[in-house]
Amino acid sequence: MELLSALSLGELALSFSRVPLFPVFDLSYFIVSILYLKYEPGAVELSRRHPVASWLCAMLHCFGSYILADLLLGEPLIDYFSNNSSVLLASAVWYLIFFCPLDLFYKCVCFLPVKLIFVAMKEVVRVRKIAVGIHHAHHHYHHGWFVMIATGWVKGSGVALMSHAEQLLRGVWKPETNEVLHMSFPTKASLYGAVLFTLQQTRWLPVSKASLIFVFTLFMVSCKVFLTATHSHSSPFDVLEGYMCPVLFGAGWGGEQHHHDNHGGSPAAGPGLQHPVLPAKAREELGEGARKKKTKKAD
Amino acid sequence: MELLSALSLGELALSFSRVPLFPVFDLSYFIVSILYLKYEPGAVELSRRHPVASWLCAMLHCFGSYILADLLLGEPLIDYFSNNSSVLLASAVWYLIFFCPLDLFYKCVCFLPVKLIFVAMKEVVRVRKIAVGIHHAHHHYHHGWFVMIATGWVKGSGVALMSHAEQLLRGVWKPETNEVLHMSFPTKASLYGAVLFTLQQTRWLPVSKASLIFVFTLFMVSCKVFLTATHSHSSPFDVLEGYMCPVLFGAGWGGEQHHHDNHGGSPAAGPGLQHPVLPAKAREELGEGARKKKTKKAD
Amino acid sequence: MELLSALSLGELALSFSRVPLFPVFDLSYFIVSILYLKYEPGAVELSRRHPVASWLCAMLHCFGSYILADLLLGEPLIDYFSNNSSVLLASAVWYLIFFCPLDLFYKCVCFLPVKLIFVAMKEVVRVRKIAVGIHHAHHHYHHGWFVMIATGWVKGSGVALMSHAEQLLRGVWKPETNEVLHMSFPTKASLYGAVLFTLQQTRWLPVSKASLIFVFTLFMVSCKVFLTATHSHSSPFDVLEGYMCPVLFGAGWGGEQHHHDNHGGSPAAGPGLQHPVLPAKAREELGEGARKKKTKKAD
Repeated sequence: MELLSALSLGELALSFSRVPLFPVFDLSYFIVSILYLKYEPGAVELSRRHPVASWLCAMLHCFGSYILADLLLGEPLIDYFSNNSSVLLASAVWYLIFFCPLDLFYKCVCFLPVKLIFVAMKEVVRVRKIAVGIHHAHHHYHHGWFVMIATGWVKGSGVALMSHAEQLLRGVWKPETNEVLHMSFPTKASLYGAVLFTLQQTRWLPVSKASLIFVFTLFMVSCKVFLTATHSHSSPFDVLEGYMCPVLFGAGWGGEQHHHDNHGGSPAAGPGLQHPVLPAKAREELGEGARKKKTKKAD
Repeated sequence: MELLSALSLGELALSFSRVPLFPVFDLSYFIVSILYLKYEPGAVELSRRHPVASWLCAMLHCFGSYILADLLLGEPLIDYFSNNSSVLLASAVWYLIFFCPLDLFYKCVCFLPVKLIFVAMKEVVRVRKIAVGIHHAHHHYHHGWFVMIATGWVKGSGVALMSHAEQLLRGVWKPETNEVLHMSFPTKASLYGAVLFTLQQTRWLPVSKASLIFVFTLFMVSCKVFLTATHSHSSPFDVLEGYMCPVLFGAGWGGEQHHHDNHGGSPAAGPGLQHPVLPAKAREELGEGARKKKTKKAD
Repeated sequence: MELLSALSLGELALSFSRVPLFPVFDLSYFIVSILYLKYEPGAVELSRRHPVASWLCAMLHCFGSYILADLLLGEPLIDYFSNNSSVLLASAVWYLIFFCPLDLFYKCVCFLPVKLIFVAMKEVVRVRKIAVGIHHAHHHYHHGWFVMIATGWVKGSGVALMSHAEQLLRGVWKPETNEVLHMSFPTKASLYGAVLFTLQQTRWLPVSKASLIFVFTLFMVSCKVFLTATHSHSSPFDVLEGYMCPVLFGAGWGGEQHHHDNHGGSPAAGPGLQHPVLPAKAREELGEGARKKKTKKAD
């Protein structure tokens, strides 16, 4: 790594870390974020019937990370909304994605090669946000590792960590799951990234910030583009977690992801760990279902 | 408008904008707010069995707008509760409305002519709150239009925008709807008012603040008194929105209100827009119901 | 009380109020708090399958009071997490309670005599937190009685007042009840304690703070140890509230507690007060049940 920063790669990393995000990269971030909003069931109806709620949801998707970080650090929740140009840009994207005649804009940005470019650029923004968030938290709490990690995590994960609030705004309520229970790849990667950037910030990781941003961005972009292109929901951390979690916690949180993907196969999880945390009633039904299955197998 | 401020009407507006709100207008605000709390199903039982929860709900009804604005602007949530006299006044109103012997106080303030006076005075407070909120936000964010509009909106709408929290405190949970999805007249008017006052504050609307307060108060008072007197839930914005929304968003948010009022008639809404955003299950049932109806019609 | 502070008891109180809480008392606080988390149904499964969510829940149990107080007073929510040593200590306790081989640690701290010592030490921390919270609020709002009481209350009650958020993190959702509707003994005692300490802080209660801390700690420790030892959920305030509430509010909030403990017996509550505030559906069912019972009685 020392070597890397000595080479011309180091200079590349430095100049990469100085590329301004506004407006091109931010635009990509807004497009991909609001695309994911449009994928939500009922989102199109919502935009037709309740444009104000739909616009607020779009703003949460675009600026959720700032809102959460401001909440954690005791700053005005609405602080980022003073950037009129960003908000106007996000609003324009929202309008084009939901109300463009013939759905032209949506069809263009959904075209896979185009979408992959935007997805890649979104990850550039995400990594930069994590780095900036941790720098900001470090400014307030010089030795507050947990504060830095938390700030970096919410800056990277964004609306995912406030999905209950976002759903509630749309009149949807799914209390039995949340992003902390079932982490998606970006949320998990943001957490690991926040740990890395915190180590860098506190000088435990002997690399320059620019290099770390460069390497971590490369990692995120390649992973996310691959996952998006293959419509996969697995995660490159599964292998690592498969080794670590049984040692540390008796059973794995990575393992859970496997479970979702290939329901039938793996009898790896020990007994008593089969049911995720559901409300009592749902769990009973599930339990009953399992019992019936076992009875059938016995037959 | 320039003319208006030149005339003696301008002076009237100025002196009107300087009338102190405490205690008479604030008292009316508290009375009407806590009246609406008492109208909620279960509120009387709650006050008997859980006076602390009932009192907290009453405080949210009276001071919800301050709490929300403080949250947005990063100030202590509890800031306004340092006004002991206001809190004591609101508490006294709460006690009288819920626990007065023979329900005398409640019967008096519910008597329609008396109630209309209080309702009118509440609107005076609401408009002043919007103006003050936007002035306050402008002080922090000179060019933050969105911040100003949001602050004015929550200052005008108050507890309506935090109804989920208020309901939860009473043990009630209705996630399928909220004030942003189904805006009541005061919430909608607060939003439009916030836009107007923001335009005035940023000098885009060439009128004095006093005149705008005066005119907007007149509008709000006459509308709200009319709506309360006729027990109507329609809104004077419906006509305007009926024209604007189909152009801007394909279908209207004002139209939704109509829907609620006269269920049967209007086939105006296009296909696919018939079901509001409900939780999946409810929507399925609704869908089934609709299918059955169609089958019947086919018969 | 003046006498008390003149005697050597006063000096005892003073030196008691100066005993540092970290690490021994804080450790007890963490142990008992996380024990209560482990008692929650599904908490062990959660720790195996979703260690991050379980750890976050544990942190809410340990530091909920700080988070809530920071929220009320407009300080960074995450402020207390800059105390790395406290967070690390709490994390270690969480790990030992949930993942210690053979559940040794859990079995040790659950052994009743040991647990009673920890419970007693937790109450020492609770009372100190109330006192510190009110002192802090007084620093910001010199005459803000309501602010002081609220801050003291949330500092004493901790995670109980944010149970909805904590449950949601675990994927559990019980909107029909909350800690304000059904106050447990510590929550109620914290409220009364906050009132007492506020009176002391504003010089309405002519005792020294050290004496009040000493006396209130004695009261809390003896009550909580007795209640824990006898597995009782009743409250020493029931008698007082049984007298006060019917006078003040027509019916009592203390009475409600009785109701839960001995369902059958007491016909003390008046008619119309029988159903707690439940969601409409549950209430209907309850109503039906009651009707059936009446029919049976009529038979």
